[in-house]
Amino acid sequence: MGRMTSQNKLVFFFGGGIAEGDASMKDLLGGKGANLAEMTRIGIPVPAGFTICTEVCNEFFKSGGKHPENLQWRVEAALGQVEKAMEAKFGDTKKPLLLSVRSGARASMPGMMDTILNIGLNDQTIEGVIKKSGDPRFAYDCYRRFVQMYANVVLGVSGDHFENLIQQKKRSLDVELDTELAAEDWEELVGAFKAKVREITGKDFPDDPHQQLWGAIDAVFNSWMKPRAVTYRRLNDIPDDWGTAVNVQAMVFGNMGDDSATGVAFTRNPATGERHFYGEFLVNAQGEDVVAGIRTPQQVTLEGKRRIGSHLPSMEEIMPKLYNKMVKIYQKLEQHYRDMQDIEFTIQKGHLWILQTRSGKRTAKAALKIAVDMVMEGVISKEEAVQRVDARSLDQLLHPTLDPEAQQRAHVLATGLPASPGAGSGQVVFDADTAEAWNNEGKDVILVRDETCPEDIHGMHAAKAILTARGGMTSHAAVVARGMGRPCVCGCHDLEIDFAAQQMTVGGVTLAKGDWITLDGASGQVMEGQVATVDSTLSGDFAAFMQWTDEIRTMKIRTNADTPEDAVVARKFGAEGIGLCRTEHMFFEEDRIVAMREMILAENEQDRRQALAKILPIQRRDFEGIFRAMKGFPVTIRLLDPPLHEFIPHDLKGQQDVALSLGTPVSEVKRRVEELRESNPMLGHRGCRLGVTYPEIYEMQVRAIMEAACHLIKREHFTIVPEIMIPLVAHAKEMRVLKELCVATCEQVMAEQGVVVQFMVGTMIELPRAALIADQLAQEVDFFSFGTNDLTQTTLGISRDDSGSFLKEYVNKRLLEKDPFVSIDQEGVGQLVMMGVKKGRHVRANLKVGICGEHGGDPSSILFFQQAGLDYVSCSPYRVPVARLAAAQAALASAK
Amino acid sequence: MGRMTSQNKLVFFFGGGIAEGDASMKDLLGGKGANLAEMTRIGIPVPAGFTICTEVCNEFFKSGGKHPENLQWRVEAALGQVEKAMEAKFGDTKKPLLLSVRSGARASMPGMMDTILNIGLNDQTIEGVIKKSGDPRFAYDCYRRFVQMYANVVLGVSGDHFENLIQQKKRSLDVELDTELAAEDWEELVGAFKAKVREITGKDFPDDPHQQLWGAIDAVFNSWMKPRAVTYRRLNDIPDDWGTAVNVQAMVFGNMGDDSATGVAFTRNPATGERHFYGEFLVNAQGEDVVAGIRTPQQVTLEGKRRIGSHLPSMEEIMPKLYNKMVKIYQKLEQHYRDMQDIEFTIQKGHLWILQTRSGKRTAKAALKIAVDMVMEGVISKEEAVQRVDARSLDQLLHPTLDPEAQQRAHVLATGLPASPGAGSGQVVFDADTAEAWNNEGKDVILVRDETCPEDIHGMHAAKAILTARGGMTSHAAVVARGMGRPCVCGCHDLEIDFAAQQMTVGGVTLAKGDWITLDGASGQVMEGQVATVDSTLSGDFAAFMQWTDEIRTMKIRTNADTPEDAVVARKFGAEGIGLCRTEHMFFEEDRIVAMREMILAENEQDRRQALAKILPIQRRDFEGIFRAMKGFPVTIRLLDPPLHEFIPHDLKGQQDVALSLGTPVSEVKRRVEELRESNPMLGHRGCRLGVTYPEIYEMQVRAIMEAACHLIKREHFTIVPEIMIPLVAHAKEMRVLKELCVATCEQVMAEQGVVVQFMVGTMIELPRAALIADQLAQEVDFFSFGTNDLTQTTLGISRDDSGSFLKEYVNKRLLEKDPFVSIDQEGVGQLVMMGVKKGRHVRANLKVGICGEHGGDPSSILFFQQAGLDYVSCSPYRVPVARLAAAQAALASAK
Repeated sequence: MGRMTSQNKLVFFFGGGIAEGDASMKDLLGGKGANLAEMTRIGIPVPAGFTICTEVCNEFFKSGGKHPENLQWRVEAALGQVEKAMEAKFGDTKKPLLLSVRSGARASMPGMMDTILNIGLNDQTIEGVIKKSGDPRFAYDCYRRFVQMYANVVLGVSGDHFENLIQQKKRSLDVELDTELAAEDWEELVGAFKAKVREITGKDFPDDPHQQLWGAIDAVFNSWMKPRAVTYRRLNDIPDDWGTAVNVQAMVFGNMGDDSATGVAFTRNPATGERHFYGEFLVNAQGEDVVAGIRTPQQVTLEGKRRIGSHLPSMEEIMPKLYNKMVKIYQKLEQHYRDMQDIEFTIQKGHLWILQTRSGKRTAKAALKIAVDMVMEGVISKEEAVQRVDARSLDQLLHPTLDPEAQQRAHVLATGLPASPGAGSGQVVFDADTAEAWNNEGKDVILVRDETCPEDIHGMHAAKAILTARGGMTSHAAVVARGMGRPCVCGCHDLEIDFAAQQMTVGGVTLAKGDWITLDGASGQVMEGQVATVDSTLSGDFAAFMQWTDEIRTMKIRTNADTPEDAVVARKFGAEGIGLCRTEHMFFEEDRIVAMREMILAENEQDRRQALAKILPIQRRDFEGIFRAMKGFPVTIRLLDPPLHEFIPHDLKGQQDVALSLGTPVSEVKRRVEELRESNPMLGHRGCRLGVTYPEIYEMQVRAIMEAACHLIKREHFTIVPEIMIPLVAHAKEMRVLKELCVATCEQVMAEQGVVVQFMVGTMIELPRAALIADQLAQEVDFFSFGTNDLTQTTLGISRDDSGSFLKEYVNKRLLEKDPFVSIDQEGVGQLVMMGVKKGRHVRANLKVGICGEHGGDPSSILFFQQAGLDYVSCSPYRVPVARLAAAQAALASAK
Repeated sequence: MGRMTSQNKLVFFFGGGIAEGDASMKDLLGGKGANLAEMTRIGIPVPAGFTICTEVCNEFFKSGGKHPENLQWRVEAALGQVEKAMEAKFGDTKKPLLLSVRSGARASMPGMMDTILNIGLNDQTIEGVIKKSGDPRFAYDCYRRFVQMYANVVLGVSGDHFENLIQQKKRSLDVELDTELAAEDWEELVGAFKAKVREITGKDFPDDPHQQLWGAIDAVFNSWMKPRAVTYRRLNDIPDDWGTAVNVQAMVFGNMGDDSATGVAFTRNPATGERHFYGEFLVNAQGEDVVAGIRTPQQVTLEGKRRIGSHLPSMEEIMPKLYNKMVKIYQKLEQHYRDMQDIEFTIQKGHLWILQTRSGKRTAKAALKIAVDMVMEGVISKEEAVQRVDARSLDQLLHPTLDPEAQQRAHVLATGLPASPGAGSGQVVFDADTAEAWNNEGKDVILVRDETCPEDIHGMHAAKAILTARGGMTSHAAVVARGMGRPCVCGCHDLEIDFAAQQMTVGGVTLAKGDWITLDGASGQVMEGQVATVDSTLSGDFAAFMQWTDEIRTMKIRTNADTPEDAVVARKFGAEGIGLCRTEHMFFEEDRIVAMREMILAENEQDRRQALAKILPIQRRDFEGIFRAMKGFPVTIRLLDPPLHEFIPHDLKGQQDVALSLGTPVSEVKRRVEELRESNPMLGHRGCRLGVTYPEIYEMQVRAIMEAACHLIKREHFTIVPEIMIPLVAHAKEMRVLKELCVATCEQVMAEQGVVVQFMVGTMIELPRAALIADQLAQEVDFFSFGTNDLTQTTLGISRDDSGSFLKEYVNKRLLEKDPFVSIDQEGVGQLVMMGVKKGRHVRANLKVGICGEHGGDPSSILFFQQAGLDYVSCSPYRVPVARLAAAQAALASAK
């Protein structure tokens, strides 16, 4: 194809059931041109036209604005075909053909390129339009619009001039609205417009239709190199040499009287996915009238009319013949494109024209239903079905969402980050204890905090939703809320909390404790009062669909779960194991935090061991519960990670409580808190550094894990392979020392219990250095798990807790494509992941490699992880279905 | 050589001026064996002996403990040669030859391997020893030591048994000291020892000298595989298959009467480097007596005796013949080894034996003098001279040091990190203002803080030295102190400050404000009271020597300097430009901090610009001063880097002051402080992120730089090429945006000033991501400067401010070789540096690449940077000489 084709054939006609192009010729004809040709080819009544191919555009720029030799006669020839098909003549005064000229590149560049409508109008042809439409006002309105648009786009005259003239006209007539101007007024204005063009450009406005056409064609070519288009391409990696095609097409009008109409139809219901034809239209109207929503549209089908209880007649009733034609067309289009179609149509004087068809936008629910139905109907394969549903949208199906109607009326106070999906209403409280207390009284509460910390977990659990003023998409609040399936809005900078007064100010409104608000975790909106929500319901389709994703994907999906309850939820959503069980959350519950604090305040190893001995049986029970919930599936347990100061309160009151409960002087508690204070806790004394300095802590945890495994194997007879994971490793030697500690403890417990348990010891790869020396680490461990949250923080040097103040601006200014804590930074962090996998597997071919950061639930990250060759991803329980689908899509994409 | 040699020649004799080996045969003979052979070969009187080569050791382990076929008769033959050379016979009762058996590997493994002395003693040969020495007590003491050592090392009998027997003996005689036991007592003990060996091992102690010898040889071989030796090799990367040689050598004794002696001599003065023979000896003594320091040693030379005013006769006086022999030997040794030698000698019955020679340890001052002198004497080349001085030690020459005598008497209270070299005494103060006030009163003060912050700088400047309780080698205190040349001890965890009481507790002692302490920044010691110091004096040798380093090195040495004063100091030390001029320190001085705070508290861009306008002329003056001080040399200026909250006080008093001086409500100041608070400021809103969110700040700074350059070029007519450096870049897009800002501002200023200034725009590479995408960044910039402090923090995930609590333990446990903030982590951070240079130069071959972290002053890091191909290193002014020398050494090492 390519060059040869273009030299032979610069112009591609379509119309009257015949087309010289087809859908496969997108590169040459652009998306729009190929689509018009394809529709024509399968017999859809499309207004006739022709496409000047993209290579003409390239030639145009190469030659400094000249057309290829043969272009002119080829355009003339094609124009002749259009005239024949439309039974009209370009420049004719009786049956004048009007044309539109539109760009159409290989990739969609919405709003970047120029369009000119109504080409062919002049003082002679206008007569034909008046005659045909029987409506001089309509005709002159078309005419003046054409002059305005053409002068602006082709001749470079600012639109302000014309607006001024219209204003003058209205002032002189003492009217306010365009609609109050009559045909004569518009006619006069056309003259005034043309005079203004002459005044500014020094030339007459071109009255010759052919001159108009060529001017429009060149204008579209030129718009390819306009700065906004160039910038758009640069930002979207679209090569300049793709060029644009130019589509010249006959105009049709839906506003030529009561036998004309315009509308939009869907081949299936885009909200529910149900298999019925659905559409709206307006009689004697233009497409923009349907969009504008000033007139209430009528339903296309009788069924649709009944459903919404409309009193307006349906198309099925008032235009039954055309309706029947529409039905045949929609069936043909859906069958041909094998997907639900969104169809734009216009009826001009009783003649039905299809202007555009494309895959219709749909809700998550509809996407799922349509995909499943189409498989059942034998239209598409399971693989195609899996690719038809946006993985991101699945979330909508799992959480309550705002009632769309109520949402429209809601008063939005502020918008924060959409940190955890779902919507929830409740009464505002400012601390976790109150949240829990009020929840126990049966109240719905929203927990509002500057930011949350592990001590708030019981309050988050008690809340319907969580709102914070600080913190990003992977802040504590966001991570925990997603894990619990609670809606959460984070980093809402417009929010100011006055804890002393127990009130908050947001969006200029001050709300007190007990006032109602509603959060939409999917959009980040904070709304005043109670906004109605709709519960999620999972259909049988969902189960079938998810089953297909499991058949297709090659990566395993695990979950991040810290409790037996979370583990059970995740299993229900299809998790195939736990990729990250954080042990620190376990320490915050009431029965153990005292012992934990005792341990931290201990002055020496012996006292520490005494305190740890109290925690041991509790941790063991936790692990038993988790192993039981995950029966038969692997469980990766991360040993203690956060710095110890997280476990001691930093306020005086809390410190006094601790002192009291431990029988220690407050001064001692304060001293220890001060001693543990860190400038950058993220880079501080945490992770395996705790294991190195306080080996007895890790020893206790490993013992708890292994005792739990031994007990279950002995008493409940199932297989458990605990995967013990060491966090924050940076050096091979620290890994070696801690592995030895793990192995020695495991062997001791097995000897004591008389049970042999298979176990694995692995490391998180969450520091750049760990990825850089992954070959050394692989010699020590059985598995890697990429902790991409911390790896992102350290690689980019961005604290997720502090990123709110600048990251949003970075994304707004397009310095960053996406929040790197939401979607993995493939160029930077991704390089380290690739390097880690490669170096690790080079040393140990059967190394098990997974990822347990928040990115494990992000579809585009999952695609990257598939390409990086990971064995599994792990995400929060409510993200598991998203991850399953995304992994299936990634497998299909990688297989290509 | 290799296998052939070993098959032909397993045993290498040396003695009587003849040696079968030489210095080049270290791999085969081990370090010690090669050295003994070499000394013998050049005519030095070395006790005769032979070396069993390393390949025998490997054969021994390969064959499971067997000797190569021919070993036995070769040993016998060599033994015969030894007997001839020493005029004694192994096992003879009249002139018995006694032997030592020592290990000797290619690399020194101090204390790891076994040694057996006095082999050949039994109840018959002892008679000969008694006769020859005329001292039965000496003879039996040797005998019993031999039995003890042999039984322990070769037969595996615990030394406790023998100690018990000696204790019993002493109790029975009612004496306390070994010296109170007579010859008969030792004779009896030898019998008791042998009986004990029989009791424990079930075998007789071997009386046959040959059996003794072979037992000892095998014991030395076996010690190669003992756990401690294996561990040592693993930690020091010494391959197991290097094996050890075994040196069998005739024993000589310095304690055989008044015609015997033992001593140590240096060919030049090891303290001053002066060219005179220097040594000490003891008559009728063993080597260990000299070391033990119980008897006062005599001087070898008359000159030495005079110098120290000793009343003991010198060797030159009492043994003039032997002394003359010594003089010839030392001259020969120094000439042969071309370095100052440390020589161990023994005189046995009027016969001089040289036991060992090696390059002598020396002070920095001596090292420098000796190196320079030897070049002048034509002994060594300049290149060799440059390699003879430990770069690290140069620091000693630039700072006052503790008076060594006073140091011995000082009471060390605690030891922290040796953060900035030099010693200083002063009165303790706990805040910067007092430090300044007292200093103005003429007092010497030591500033003691938990940790310092930029607000403390005036106090640090006023102090003689700085002590902090927290922070590592690159904490604020350490970095600033090194820059100022102030001694500093950091991270002294034993220190507790009670600010309320204005006192501190350290090492159990409580000191109040005004009490005297002394700090040694070279050792990290904190001492009570005033300890005398010695000022540094730089000799003419120093200048000559540094001149040579400049001729040899290929990397440029720049300095990190923020003020004209620092720049002047650095120039004096030979800095060739500024690699890092931090602009933030400029903001803390009194005349500008108010405007800075105004800027930070501003609500909008306009107010910010107003405040910045006040800072502009001040910054311009700063830059003018710095450009002037660095006349003709490049100056790299880093735009604002630290988070804004560093500039606002965090205590109520300070906030009130700010509010007062700005006429703002305190609540407003507080609010802003709270707003700016960060969880991990290191990873927060800082560096170029400030430039992106507040472009007006960077604009002002670039303007100040360019206006300063224009002014100087116009008025003072010298060339300036300002290098504008953007910190904390992670993404190519942010660099592009900020480069555009810099270039636009520069062009505007040049247009205004009517001057053309060449300028460069570059980036710090201080985040892992920057190194990973260095190819993208190189497209935007003229230079890279690796900020290895932050790059280390992020790559390793270690905050230097918080590392104190665990990093020391990591180094102690040998999980880390060195503090990665002192010496660059080549395996991890180094990989990123290499990657950054490679990717950067791949895109832009002439990319200028330097490093401006603290590692720029660390010799082993400098060697790495040379290998990485950097153009320059930049370090604090006082480290410049160290860096110049280290760079010269690195150039020589890399040329090899």
